[in-house]
Amino acid sequence: MALVVIGGVAAGLSAAARARRIDPRLPITVLEKGPVISYGACGLPYLVEGRVRAPEQLIHYTPEYFRKERNVDVRTGARVVSIAHPRREVLLESGDRVRYDHLVLATGARCDTMGIAGASAPHVFTLHTLEDAERMRRFLAEHNPRTAVVIGAGYIGVEAADALRRHGLRVTIVERSQHALLRDDPPFTEAVVKQLELHGVELRFGVDVKSIDDFPADMVVIAAGFKPNTELAAEAGIDRGRFGAIRTDDRMETNLRGVYAAGDCAEVQHLVTGKPTYIPLGTTANKTGRVAGANAAGARERFAGIVGTSIVSIFGLGFATTGLSTAQARAEGFSPVVARIEASMRPRYFGGGTTTVELVADRATTRLVGGSVIGEDGAAGRINVIAAALTAKLKVEDFEGLDLAYSPPFATVWDPLLIAAQQLVKEF
Amino acid sequence: MALVVIGGVAAGLSAAARARRIDPRLPITVLEKGPVISYGACGLPYLVEGRVRAPEQLIHYTPEYFRKERNVDVRTGARVVSIAHPRREVLLESGDRVRYDHLVLATGARCDTMGIAGASAPHVFTLHTLEDAERMRRFLAEHNPRTAVVIGAGYIGVEAADALRRHGLRVTIVERSQHALLRDDPPFTEAVVKQLELHGVELRFGVDVKSIDDFPADMVVIAAGFKPNTELAAEAGIDRGRFGAIRTDDRMETNLRGVYAAGDCAEVQHLVTGKPTYIPLGTTANKTGRVAGANAAGARERFAGIVGTSIVSIFGLGFATTGLSTAQARAEGFSPVVARIEASMRPRYFGGGTTTVELVADRATTRLVGGSVIGEDGAAGRINVIAAALTAKLKVEDFEGLDLAYSPPFATVWDPLLIAAQQLVKEF
Repeated sequence: MALVVIGGVAAGLSAAARARRIDPRLPITVLEKGPVISYGACGLPYLVEGRVRAPEQLIHYTPEYFRKERNVDVRTGARVVSIAHPRREVLLESGDRVRYDHLVLATGARCDTMGIAGASAPHVFTLHTLEDAERMRRFLAEHNPRTAVVIGAGYIGVEAADALRRHGLRVTIVERSQHALLRDDPPFTEAVVKQLELHGVELRFGVDVKSIDDFPADMVVIAAGFKPNTELAAEAGIDRGRFGAIRTDDRMETNLRGVYAAGDCAEVQHLVTGKPTYIPLGTTANKTGRVAGANAAGARERFAGIVGTSIVSIFGLGFATTGLSTAQARAEGFSPVVARIEASMRPRYFGGGTTTVELVADRATTRLVGGSVIGEDGAAGRINVIAAALTAKLKVEDFEGLDLAYSPPFATVWDPLLIAAQQLVKEF
Repeated sequence: MALVVIGGVAAGLSAAARARRIDPRLPITVLEKGPVISYGACGLPYLVEGRVRAPEQLIHYTPEYFRKERNVDVRTGARVVSIAHPRREVLLESGDRVRYDHLVLATGARCDTMGIAGASAPHVFTLHTLEDAERMRRFLAEHNPRTAVVIGAGYIGVEAADALRRHGLRVTIVERSQHALLRDDPPFTEAVVKQLELHGVELRFGVDVKSIDDFPADMVVIAAGFKPNTELAAEAGIDRGRFGAIRTDDRMETNLRGVYAAGDCAEVQHLVTGKPTYIPLGTTANKTGRVAGANAAGARERFAGIVGTSIVSIFGLGFATTGLSTAQARAEGFSPVVARIEASMRPRYFGGGTTTVELVADRATTRLVGGSVIGEDGAAGRINVIAAALTAKLKVEDFEGLDLAYSPPFATVWDPLLIAAQQLVKEF
């Protein structure tokens, strides 16, 4: 028996580490096309910003560590060009072949810049790998750019804008859709726009960039067109789903027996809709990698699914979402009822500060189906409570009764979550 | 129809306000024995500390506000001496009688200093009412005390110790039991002791104070012997439960039809054990007050129960608990399995900092039954996620899969809650 993992970042290394725990003797090989493994991709904007001083700070483990401490053969610069599943073999660009019994695909995703003319110009960047971030740092240091255009108002787009603004650049974000942070939610988008504007970043919607020349700037960051890397899988006969990512069952196994997929290349189940979805995030990559690795090593574990929880900091303000927005809920066949409140997080003598909470429930079942939280602090904690409620399929009347912690340094006696729930109950 | 509410702080005023919403014409009278209503009792330690500058900052509403804006007749200095339920009448100390059809008892609790000789000396205090806190402030200003003994290591005890220490006093806490913060949990208690010691406060266990003279000090704070005020209720034939507080059903109605109880004088259902419990806290007072007021005004609402969530700040470090400790779980007939971890809350480049998470589950059902979180920040958010899980009766394997928010400014990719859950799964 031998396990081969394609991809050595979050999902791939979670899979390898977990497989090693399950089976101490299993031969495990990780094939990573890039020069480094195991870096915290979510830290890249902070490397550009300068808060992370050196790329090494984002690297959790080296290939040597995995070789010595985990007895996992990690090869960098090892680009797989095809999978010959009938022979249980992967072919590398170098011409080498690697045999497997079980295979984990953790090929990740990329920013697809194909549709944008001029994307390969030296002042144009994506922010997906450690090399991308280093190249951007060098450009900032050497060319002293004054203006930047960021294409895409998703997480990476706003984080890149935040980082570049802190370098003193005039930054404009252009977004094809009418909403920010991939959330079809007008008040939430408006709050994002307001926070960006407050810090001198302009956000324009409905802009479909065809060419880099359309927006003259000293530097351009393409943070749109996020696309799962599934070419290898498709050629090998592995099914993809509605969103173009690899389809798996709840054991992260693909339609090819013994071949698993995890991370940004794979679809997962959405626990609110009960349907497959594609929301590539680091948390899910680690979790699905763990499950894929366990099963590929002979265990029997299950990945229940996600509720789509995420958070991003925009100039220090947390924007967090989970589950479905009102518009998404409607599109999924729910009849959404919504409440949105702004409330103090603490008594004034403890610094007060307000937070915005939105809760979305389904009229027929009173089940919560989504929510968002905006706040300087506490946003992660509060969105996580909503996420737990979505996972447990709590109804709004159960949520309203939640026994949440209170003491003046930490909260108000009625937590903003409960105030939102009380408001939501009134809307039924 | 007329509603009378005995008690004008958290539960009583929540009941009155909610009753008014349900029935705009109902005659409502609130009888408060003290001189003020509607103060944030949980803020009293911060008034002693000085962070709250004036007592008025802790008063949410005045009697005038309730009279004018809510059409509720609020009488201060109105001490009820008996309830004549057969005549539906309460008798005041003044000799006045007030008729009711529905009655809400929100008589609160007190520190019972009866068993301690010398408790009425001028340098001895409790910290239960606004007057208590003001008297303590005056004493600090006028007598410049150098040493203090705090009797009781519950929430008020440690908060009082924190406040007095910040005034420069040498503070010793003495506690009858072997644990702090009412949590029979040795590692948790040890963490409390460590944090207090770090800030120069000594905590001694197994000390049963019979007389104030046993511990000579410039001032003494009695923060033990918390007891529900149920004398009025008992004389009127209202049943009390195992913990001595008023027994109610899930509508907060007592055994006397039309008589409700709420807040610190009442027992509530514990959602983990399924049994009545007595955990007097401001959050529960407000919630049960709301439900009692709604039902007393003719609505039909239900208070599901609590899971016993609380948090306290000790010199800036949050100590939070919910559900059952290992010892409590065992006492309640569960077979507890426990995991306790310490983990980083954020990447180092975002200030790192560690948090301690303990999770307790039941071996037979794998259901989570309790937990605790200690952390400089994030403790409230994390304990609330556990509280939501307890309410939803989540199993540890569901909890392990929770889709929690991640981004470097806010968390680690594996949230400490999930690391604790992974550890707990291994213990099964």
